[in-house]
Amino acid sequence: MLADEIKNYNLGQLQELAGQLRERLVAVVRENGGHLASNLGVVELTLALHYVFDFSRDKLVFDVGHQSYAHKLLTGRDLSHVRRKGGESGFPDPAESPYDAFIAGHSGTSVGAGIGLCCARDAYGDDYKVVSFIGDASLGNGVALEAVFSADHKPNNFLVVLNDNGMSIDKNNSALYRALSKATAKKGYRDFNKKMRRTFKETSAFGKKLRKMKYVLKGWLNKNDFFERCGFKYVGPVDGHDLHELVSVLENIKNIDEPVLLHVITVKGKGFGAAEEDPARFHGVGQNFVGSNNSFAVALGRVLCARAAEDASLVAVTAAMTDGVGLSEFASLYPHRFFDVGICEEYAVTMAAGMAKGGLSPVVCLYSTFLQRAYDEIVQDVCIQNLPVIFCIDRAGFVGADGKTHQGLLDLSALRAVPNLKIFAPKDCSELADVFDYARSLRCPVAIRYPNGYAANLGSRMHISENMLWEVLTEGEGVVVLASGARAVARALDARRVSGRTDVKVVNCRSVKPLDEKMLDRYAGHKIVTFEEGYTAGGFGSAVAEYYAARGEAVQLLMLGAPDRFVAHAGAQEQAEEARLTSRELAAKINAFAAQGRA
Amino acid sequence: MLADEIKNYNLGQLQELAGQLRERLVAVVRENGGHLASNLGVVELTLALHYVFDFSRDKLVFDVGHQSYAHKLLTGRDLSHVRRKGGESGFPDPAESPYDAFIAGHSGTSVGAGIGLCCARDAYGDDYKVVSFIGDASLGNGVALEAVFSADHKPNNFLVVLNDNGMSIDKNNSALYRALSKATAKKGYRDFNKKMRRTFKETSAFGKKLRKMKYVLKGWLNKNDFFERCGFKYVGPVDGHDLHELVSVLENIKNIDEPVLLHVITVKGKGFGAAEEDPARFHGVGQNFVGSNNSFAVALGRVLCARAAEDASLVAVTAAMTDGVGLSEFASLYPHRFFDVGICEEYAVTMAAGMAKGGLSPVVCLYSTFLQRAYDEIVQDVCIQNLPVIFCIDRAGFVGADGKTHQGLLDLSALRAVPNLKIFAPKDCSELADVFDYARSLRCPVAIRYPNGYAANLGSRMHISENMLWEVLTEGEGVVVLASGARAVARALDARRVSGRTDVKVVNCRSVKPLDEKMLDRYAGHKIVTFEEGYTAGGFGSAVAEYYAARGEAVQLLMLGAPDRFVAHAGAQEQAEEARLTSRELAAKINAFAAQGRA
Repeated sequence: MLADEIKNYNLGQLQELAGQLRERLVAVVRENGGHLASNLGVVELTLALHYVFDFSRDKLVFDVGHQSYAHKLLTGRDLSHVRRKGGESGFPDPAESPYDAFIAGHSGTSVGAGIGLCCARDAYGDDYKVVSFIGDASLGNGVALEAVFSADHKPNNFLVVLNDNGMSIDKNNSALYRALSKATAKKGYRDFNKKMRRTFKETSAFGKKLRKMKYVLKGWLNKNDFFERCGFKYVGPVDGHDLHELVSVLENIKNIDEPVLLHVITVKGKGFGAAEEDPARFHGVGQNFVGSNNSFAVALGRVLCARAAEDASLVAVTAAMTDGVGLSEFASLYPHRFFDVGICEEYAVTMAAGMAKGGLSPVVCLYSTFLQRAYDEIVQDVCIQNLPVIFCIDRAGFVGADGKTHQGLLDLSALRAVPNLKIFAPKDCSELADVFDYARSLRCPVAIRYPNGYAANLGSRMHISENMLWEVLTEGEGVVVLASGARAVARALDARRVSGRTDVKVVNCRSVKPLDEKMLDRYAGHKIVTFEEGYTAGGFGSAVAEYYAARGEAVQLLMLGAPDRFVAHAGAQEQAEEARLTSRELAAKINAFAAQGRA
Repeated sequence: MLADEIKNYNLGQLQELAGQLRERLVAVVRENGGHLASNLGVVELTLALHYVFDFSRDKLVFDVGHQSYAHKLLTGRDLSHVRRKGGESGFPDPAESPYDAFIAGHSGTSVGAGIGLCCARDAYGDDYKVVSFIGDASLGNGVALEAVFSADHKPNNFLVVLNDNGMSIDKNNSALYRALSKATAKKGYRDFNKKMRRTFKETSAFGKKLRKMKYVLKGWLNKNDFFERCGFKYVGPVDGHDLHELVSVLENIKNIDEPVLLHVITVKGKGFGAAEEDPARFHGVGQNFVGSNNSFAVALGRVLCARAAEDASLVAVTAAMTDGVGLSEFASLYPHRFFDVGICEEYAVTMAAGMAKGGLSPVVCLYSTFLQRAYDEIVQDVCIQNLPVIFCIDRAGFVGADGKTHQGLLDLSALRAVPNLKIFAPKDCSELADVFDYARSLRCPVAIRYPNGYAANLGSRMHISENMLWEVLTEGEGVVVLASGARAVARALDARRVSGRTDVKVVNCRSVKPLDEKMLDRYAGHKIVTFEEGYTAGGFGSAVAEYYAARGEAVQLLMLGAPDRFVAHAGAQEQAEEARLTSRELAAKINAFAAQGRA
């Protein structure tokens, strides 16, 4: 394994390997899509860490994990099928390799997880090293700040590597820097700090708003005392592309028996011109570096821009997902009504609640998986006060290549129980606009969920209203398929065709809460299939079961949704196949269900 | 209203009123229970704020809200029935008074909500002031840190009042302080900062661990540049019990058109000897200042102490709820295995995940309502990795006097959909020990939920095991009552007596996930009632419905749980009455259900 072999390399060989790793990274991302710029930025840093530490026993804890590809290449994973079914995950996962010390995917957890690992190590009297990797953007996240600020439990023999790609080292001071950096590591950091007066300049912009937040953190970092006061020895900043420096600093600090923070300056996209120039575009890309094409995100952006033109109270809020949720145009058209708070989902929701209390109409746009971070704020700050905040929940359902840590399968179950909140799931992009307008008219908290990827227009449009919450798409006197969400509805229509059963009634259940009770009353005597892309436990189908139970009806009900397990990376369609939720599977299940002893 | 009258008061009259308010606070808390020490600490500060601002149009946003009683007394609420049914809430609530600008109950939200209100004000061109109140302990919470660090959206004309009751002013420097404090407010804070070199000493201890965390924050605060770098003008520290100072500083900063942070030093419990001496004991108290008696918390403490003696890998983690969850004795017996991280639920869970990954057996003890804060970390850091972390969820179900913001009604719905997690709900304290041991034996994530208050021992003990997940408490061939959780089981037994129906079978469904499928198969032909203290949507009853649907059974099922609304303060029994979940209601429902057309 390369991680073992490089122990015998000299600096020139390491350098050569860095070049090869970079080529490989570009090739695998071109082939499979994935996170490119962040991975290119940490090649030397990863090499140096593996050169100095032994991660067959030491623990390397990544944060988010957008920077773990070089680590994977060094530890026996060739990434030829990264993010594909059966291939490597795009994120660290202990289930994939013992070299991945901890799961990652959501921001800000590496410091807290690393502290926990140290507590365990110390309790057992072990002496392995724990290294937590964290990026400068992640550092602004709540759970990261909680861990960094926590004076207690800050264990000795704990290294936090701050991968700071928002700044670049002033090369003019590199000699001084090198001298000082060594001194720091050897003799302690106090002398170092006194002399250290480095200037930084920004090289990359990762969204105007995010940059501003970084600027605050940068102010802290520049002073170097941020981490000291939090109980860390501060070492750095180190040029993250200078292998010689990295190795010598790491060798020096490796055995300091204190919590140490090593501040490393890296360039996002390093070594690949296009990515260096536009790291935001190369943050996460599809095959051949093409940006992803998400129908709903595009549609949402259009709707918000159009409605904002008519309604000055409409503001948009997101948390470092501007492009992903489709808000780029909105951000440039309405800069003063656009709020990207950085990777701070909790703050995004609480701030939006304040905005709504003050009379604005905030639309909070988050991926389903990251919305989980703000669950409490949704309940407490928005829903108890019944405030008109609209949550646009992107990536709801199977997310495809991002896998386990990014699935949008929990939102319905977690949100359905929250009082005052209404939940909608449009069947296609044109219905998104309709549902959005209806949501605005309600002046209460509303969640609108929809998947990523391509979504066809399914036609047949009955405007949603209090009296027309659901929409019958195909009439029929046989099995009633209650499908909720774009993919479920599309597959239900398809399944009807495949099954050849013209008596199947397909209903577009675009409102999950409230349910369309009039329709449900009408179907009470029928065999009913509920169909959704979300966990069955507590989801849409459950709501239907609850309704009939409350009405005293014993119904024949088949609930189809995601099975009770975490779902690994693969195509979203493949994930649906594994979950037996494709239109073919649905057709087979409808046929079997219809054939069961009459209702 | 007092808030209006005091505008004409002189300082002497304000002072006198402060004394009267304190007497009133002590009286109402003696009468009703509630938060005493924190409320006593902010009497002068609240008076000064109301004297200088006009909260009929300016907005006062509390954090957590343990300090809002004086504000309530000034704004037309006499608190004679605070925390009782129909009386005032113990927390700020706009539904109670327009003077409560925003809901509060969970930590850390006031800064973000205040920023949101300012955004709205500025968008509409209004000029009211927004004042966010936050305590030093809350400041360490993730969402508060996210908001404070966020450089962007920091509006002008925004005042954050930091109520710092972890320190006390060095009286020897009070003259200097006064001079400087005025200078600060008038001429800007930079000069002030240069000269300001105050020393602080701790007066109160709010738990050893929490104190350590505060120490870090205190280090920042002393330097005064923490908030400056975050974009605030820093003013202070001000003696929070010196009305003259408070009023003059507030008058001076009131019209500074920048974000300002006013650092106020207060003494928790001020003016009531016993509370000043032991503010922790007087933080939250029952009637006559008696501590609350929660059977399950006491039982959990005993179980953990006993098991810790046998198993060195067992560690306990909490987030500023040491007493409340019953960990005080554990903390003193096993200080190195006890981790109170302050008000940082997210960090608590992520750290525990790290501990478990490193081989320890962490038990995370949180109230149900605060567990919501760590929902994402439970999913991502614990459950995806299938780590053996046990969550002991206290205050599950109706919480009584704390009301809306503290109800434990969502945990089952939110957690039930999370793969790998098992969920138990023991019927009484002796079963808690049994369930806890079983949970430990499983070596996977487990949540154990139980209510606060008194819980009787219900006797009849069948050890829980894979083959005996549920326990039949009374045999009978009629309606089957599947009750989950201590209160539900106790009421189900009671309802059977009340109804006079000896054919009612009562089952203790102590495992919510997995269900006892063998038993469910056996009851398929019966009329089934599910009974729980939690929202019906997605809860335990829903799980039963899902099971029968998956099995193709059309069953007659009556699901009883909390209705779909937020539940205000009242006794827990009164809350059950409002929700129609008492044993008498259950008996009536069983009778009606039994009488319905045969299954």
